[in-house]
Amino acid sequence: METQRDSKSPIRILILGGGFAGVYSAMYLDRILPRGGNVEVTLVNREDYFVFQPLLAEVVSGNIGILDTVSPLRRLLPRTRIFVREVDSIDLEQKTVTLSPGFWPREYVLPYDHLVLALGSVTDFRGIPGLFEHALPFKNLADALSLRNHLIRAVEEATVEEDPERRKELLTFVVAGGGFSGVEVAAEMNDFVRRLVKRTRRLKVSEMRVILVHSGSRVLDRELTESLSVYATEVLKRRGVELILNTRLRTASPDAAILQNGNRIVTKTVVSTVPSTPHPLIESLALPKERGKIKVDASLRVADHDDIWAIGDCALVPIGSTGKPCPPTAQHAVRQAKTLAHNIAAQVDGRALSEFDFGGLGKLGSLGHHCAVAEVGGGIRLSGFVAWFLWRTVYWWKLPGLDRKIKVGFAWFLDLLIPPEAVQLRVGTSQGVSQVHYEPGDVVFRQGDLGDSLYIILDGEAEVLIEDHGQERVVAHMGPGEHFGEMALLSQEARTATIRCTQPMNALALQKADFNALASNIPEMRKSFARIMEERIARSSDGTEVPHAADATSASDRDGGGG
Amino acid sequence: METQRDSKSPIRILILGGGFAGVYSAMYLDRILPRGGNVEVTLVNREDYFVFQPLLAEVVSGNIGILDTVSPLRRLLPRTRIFVREVDSIDLEQKTVTLSPGFWPREYVLPYDHLVLALGSVTDFRGIPGLFEHALPFKNLADALSLRNHLIRAVEEATVEEDPERRKELLTFVVAGGGFSGVEVAAEMNDFVRRLVKRTRRLKVSEMRVILVHSGSRVLDRELTESLSVYATEVLKRRGVELILNTRLRTASPDAAILQNGNRIVTKTVVSTVPSTPHPLIESLALPKERGKIKVDASLRVADHDDIWAIGDCALVPIGSTGKPCPPTAQHAVRQAKTLAHNIAAQVDGRALSEFDFGGLGKLGSLGHHCAVAEVGGGIRLSGFVAWFLWRTVYWWKLPGLDRKIKVGFAWFLDLLIPPEAVQLRVGTSQGVSQVHYEPGDVVFRQGDLGDSLYIILDGEAEVLIEDHGQERVVAHMGPGEHFGEMALLSQEARTATIRCTQPMNALALQKADFNALASNIPEMRKSFARIMEERIARSSDGTEVPHAADATSASDRDGGGG
Repeated sequence: METQRDSKSPIRILILGGGFAGVYSAMYLDRILPRGGNVEVTLVNREDYFVFQPLLAEVVSGNIGILDTVSPLRRLLPRTRIFVREVDSIDLEQKTVTLSPGFWPREYVLPYDHLVLALGSVTDFRGIPGLFEHALPFKNLADALSLRNHLIRAVEEATVEEDPERRKELLTFVVAGGGFSGVEVAAEMNDFVRRLVKRTRRLKVSEMRVILVHSGSRVLDRELTESLSVYATEVLKRRGVELILNTRLRTASPDAAILQNGNRIVTKTVVSTVPSTPHPLIESLALPKERGKIKVDASLRVADHDDIWAIGDCALVPIGSTGKPCPPTAQHAVRQAKTLAHNIAAQVDGRALSEFDFGGLGKLGSLGHHCAVAEVGGGIRLSGFVAWFLWRTVYWWKLPGLDRKIKVGFAWFLDLLIPPEAVQLRVGTSQGVSQVHYEPGDVVFRQGDLGDSLYIILDGEAEVLIEDHGQERVVAHMGPGEHFGEMALLSQEARTATIRCTQPMNALALQKADFNALASNIPEMRKSFARIMEERIARSSDGTEVPHAADATSASDRDGGGG
Repeated sequence: METQRDSKSPIRILILGGGFAGVYSAMYLDRILPRGGNVEVTLVNREDYFVFQPLLAEVVSGNIGILDTVSPLRRLLPRTRIFVREVDSIDLEQKTVTLSPGFWPREYVLPYDHLVLALGSVTDFRGIPGLFEHALPFKNLADALSLRNHLIRAVEEATVEEDPERRKELLTFVVAGGGFSGVEVAAEMNDFVRRLVKRTRRLKVSEMRVILVHSGSRVLDRELTESLSVYATEVLKRRGVELILNTRLRTASPDAAILQNGNRIVTKTVVSTVPSTPHPLIESLALPKERGKIKVDASLRVADHDDIWAIGDCALVPIGSTGKPCPPTAQHAVRQAKTLAHNIAAQVDGRALSEFDFGGLGKLGSLGHHCAVAEVGGGIRLSGFVAWFLWRTVYWWKLPGLDRKIKVGFAWFLDLLIPPEAVQLRVGTSQGVSQVHYEPGDVVFRQGDLGDSLYIILDGEAEVLIEDHGQERVVAHMGPGEHFGEMALLSQEARTATIRCTQPMNALALQKADFNALASNIPEMRKSFARIMEERIARSSDGTEVPHAADATSASDRDGGGG
């Protein structure tokens, strides 16, 4: 089947996604298609840069400059039309894609003749209470920078913290997932935090813990042969990374990581590299799928759709010669992109399509601190510094553009001489309304704490405690729809009670500044909070102290007592 | 007078602020005070790094790496106790300083024997409606990064914008203030945006405008001699920077810069480098002040307080030999820090204090693109490439630490060979509740736009317009306390009316995600919005379409019609 062609209007190829799959597709198309021809290539990505994903973990430790992992799309793809937008929706009937608005609240609708789905996978914590709110994802450059900032901040805080329990909490770091991504993050974090702790001169290395939680009995057990997997596991242990094996991260709260085996690790830092799922837009498409990925044939086209193509991590691609599914790695995505570009050009010209076939060149994983593991073609296995050197060289070679190679080369050379600096780079403000998750026994805030947020319970239960001369007394229980914490916000005083969860609880937290802005400007909110205050004051002067002292009330059941 | 000393407890010197004044004070104190002595130095700063302010404008264009302008405080001051916090309050009676909370909602109270106020100045837009909401400040590293991201985004958007008016708006950039800071920002922006526009291949340089608004008749007229000020003005003009002189920026709205002379420049980018005021905490202190700054004597001590010292931009320091006030520059702050450290040490030891006296070494300002102006000791004036080379060399020499010098040197050398890349680095999410300011004639949103926010009017007035077959019809007026825009949020539809301001208007904007979270969880909000919806639907089916079509209603006067 050939795409219908009007001799005047160009054939529009629309690529969604700017990872390895999408960017290399555009690059190969640019190379193959004749200049001044009748084909227009457009690429949509939420960032204006391409991230060299395999080096992302190095951003955490600062072993590589922040910008050395990225290349501007416009420079890589000078002839491609680029939209720096989110994709809002895809209409397969109308053959259009709708993009999110920019400076003005207006949608962009892009029509296409060929659609290339290269949206990749996302770290999707939705539906896992606790992880969504409190685990740090590790997928893109913003995640890597946030994690870096968070680690620096935790060490800064530990330096001035005098309570040894809290210092321990600040210096405990948990990573979930023992695949390439989890191992690399844990290794880099371990190197980085160790260096930071040594530099402070006030903290001891013995106070810090980096813990890797993995469902297998060895790290990289699914990715590498047994001997290399054993080697990697030993290297991590020797470096001081604690391994908790044969279990998974179940959930997280503001103060702990909770494991499937019931263990509770008190920490302020939980990084999860699992689960990775295809982009949420893929779900909404009426196309054949398997395990959430779009099924394509070996020509990379979706069955019964001669204008829809899918490659990379959002697609289930069969390898031509074996029929086995292609693994989700960068090298495979790049080879898929090459076949895809050839096939789209072939279909436009009415030529026959070719099949994707690639066995992989090898596997490489960094273990931090000038050490790595590798399996290369022909069953050769490498480990230690040789593997690390290979790893660096291969990725350096693969960096797109000569400029980039020179800059990164210089940076790496300098970093061998001068260790990188560690400063927090904060850009932008924190979120106004956030969701928080607590597990039973977690304390939301303590009597005497500063009032910084108002909480609205979405589900679950908590108890209100008054501490008096060292004695704790439960004065009320609260459930869904009730809110607490506004007294300290309104009266600028310290918390008058402790809130402790008795069941897993989800709540909305509204920060002081936003609460004040809303409470003083939305008449409904102002009135209802004023009424609550009056009632509490009236009751407390009657001697019925509970609701006032509890700094908590029911919003839906305001006149029914303190809950 | 000598500070009372207990032979056991250390003398606590507390420095507030980590700019040139604060950091160099701690560095000089460290150098002067005997090791293992009885003095403890603590420094509080909101960031964990020191920013080399004079190079900040270079961050915008990427001529210098993001991290090359900063040095970690802990590395510069290995023996100083450092708190990375905001200062919440200062109690001069109790001799304590309270810091903002960290990971836990708990305050830190630091007692002191000597307090050094080195809080610097801030760009304070509060009290100037419009600037607070829509002008970009240019004071710290986060500001420089935000501005850089904003410029890249504006050019990205212009590249895909088809409406020539909107493209023009996106490519117009306004800088207010013709002092060193404003001139350097305008010059770097001009170089940077020009380079970006050329790279896109889709935009023309003739479509872009960089405009510098200055109250004087020449730029740098207060800072430099007439001939150099004329030269700088000519250089900027030649480079293509438009100068609007003898007027000021009056206010800004989401779509325009409004000047004192009545001119309205349609733009999405307004950078204001004025006004700079002392840190807000200074205001709250019962100490002698002049023009908002703390008055000290030539020994840098506050009159009648032998334990309170003030230096840098938050202090009014007389120069010993002339009695004239010391200008607010980095070189003066560093010399003040040196005198301060000697005087604190002298007072601790019961020796006599010395006077601050420094005439300044010269003045240097970059004009971008390898060009600068300089006035050095003995009345020597330089301009052009020679001045630029001097400027770079002096600041490179002044960078603290050899490591930093080597890295920045390499980076500068590489940048001469390979032009820097331009990508947006977004970290963190945008604010949930923001304030917006509109001037008469400004459109908040247009009929048919996507609904992305709910607005609550704080003051001012707007009209509701329906556009029908090209005809505009005013259907309602709205004032303080009324809110609009929630219909499109609730029903996921496009805006059903246009909102245009008739008076200067301030409003709160609540973004879709936060609105949904609040509306569905705060029963009061849910009920009131549900009622509004019902009323509107009922009315629109009666034929009284106004409030529905207007997508607007009064919250305080819900039953009184559409306003």
